[in-house]
Amino acid sequence: MTKEDVISAIRNVPDFPIPGIQFKDITTALQCPDCLRWFRDEMVEYYRDKGITKVLGIESRGFIIAPSVAMELNAGFVPIRKPGKLPAKVVEQSYAKEYGTDTIQIHADALTPDDIVLIHDDLLATGGTMEAAVELVMKMGVRKVYVNFLIELDGLEGKKAIQGTEEIYSLLSIKVEE
Amino acid sequence: MTKEDVISAIRNVPDFPIPGIQFKDITTALQCPDCLRWFRDEMVEYYRDKGITKVLGIESRGFIIAPSVAMELNAGFVPIRKPGKLPAKVVEQSYAKEYGTDTIQIHADALTPDDIVLIHDDLLATGGTMEAAVELVMKMGVRKVYVNFLIELDGLEGKKAIQGTEEIYSLLSIKVEE
Repeated sequence: MTKEDVISAIRNVPDFPIPGIQFKDITTALQCPDCLRWFRDEMVEYYRDKGITKVLGIESRGFIIAPSVAMELNAGFVPIRKPGKLPAKVVEQSYAKEYGTDTIQIHADALTPDDIVLIHDDLLATGGTMEAAVELVMKMGVRKVYVNFLIELDGLEGKKAIQGTEEIYSLLSIKVEE
Repeated sequence: MTKEDVISAIRNVPDFPIPGIQFKDITTALQCPDCLRWFRDEMVEYYRDKGITKVLGIESRGFIIAPSVAMELNAGFVPIRKPGKLPAKVVEQSYAKEYGTDTIQIHADALTPDDIVLIHDDLLATGGTMEAAVELVMKMGVRKVYVNFLIELDGLEGKKAIQGTEEIYSLLSIKVEE
């Protein structure tokens, strides 16, 4: 399984969710067990020596690969969710969207000051949600924050929105026009 | 790691999402890497010889363990999602909730008549969502349908709502009053 094999398993859906957007649909790649394992194994290999103690996935597509990486790194998995989903005390962060604002939450007792955190999502476009996730984690106080995406849309400059982390690493880069 | 260790890692949150409900919060167990691997390994062991070709997870908590099981069974992972999330052509199923109705969707090209399917969610309470998921998969046409939950709330008779599958299997059973 090569990087090119995985990229060719990702489907392009034109005009979703709105006209003009070329949506990168990973569900076709998730149907392929070799691709699933490739995502996990590439992440495990890359983060093995970084001392990660918690892998955070952003609802919902960020929940798909992050837990299997956590298992292999001997780290915990922590979900970052939309409001009203986490049952215990939460810390939250709001952020601007194209129209209005959105909010994400994490359980207040999910992280400790000693944690080295990897925040994961499937796709980096403009970076707004991940920017908010990093701010959320930083205001809780942890030792280090790494950021990971399965796919980065090349040409959108999404990385520039995400400040103050150790590193931002994407497994695959796809041109936004493709 | 024993079954009792995992059960004691699950947090009970009273009165969530509404007064009178004792919510079983798995996020505390997900923070424990041994518990994460226990969930995966118990499922892999149980389903290893059943010829599963696709593991389906129900949004969102059903996405957490299902993909890691799919990887080990050499099966694909397929998400069942709320409306408006899947970008390509979908098949859908509506079902009654306490107030109004809800709908779930799956990509129309995600299953074939040869598939042996395992549908997974984290928790079986009244079984309404899983009942709809089974109906959805059956109207698409597959060879066999297995159903799995991490936790079954004992005393709610949720299994009775789910008809026509090969088998319904839950890793853990917790009394609803606990």
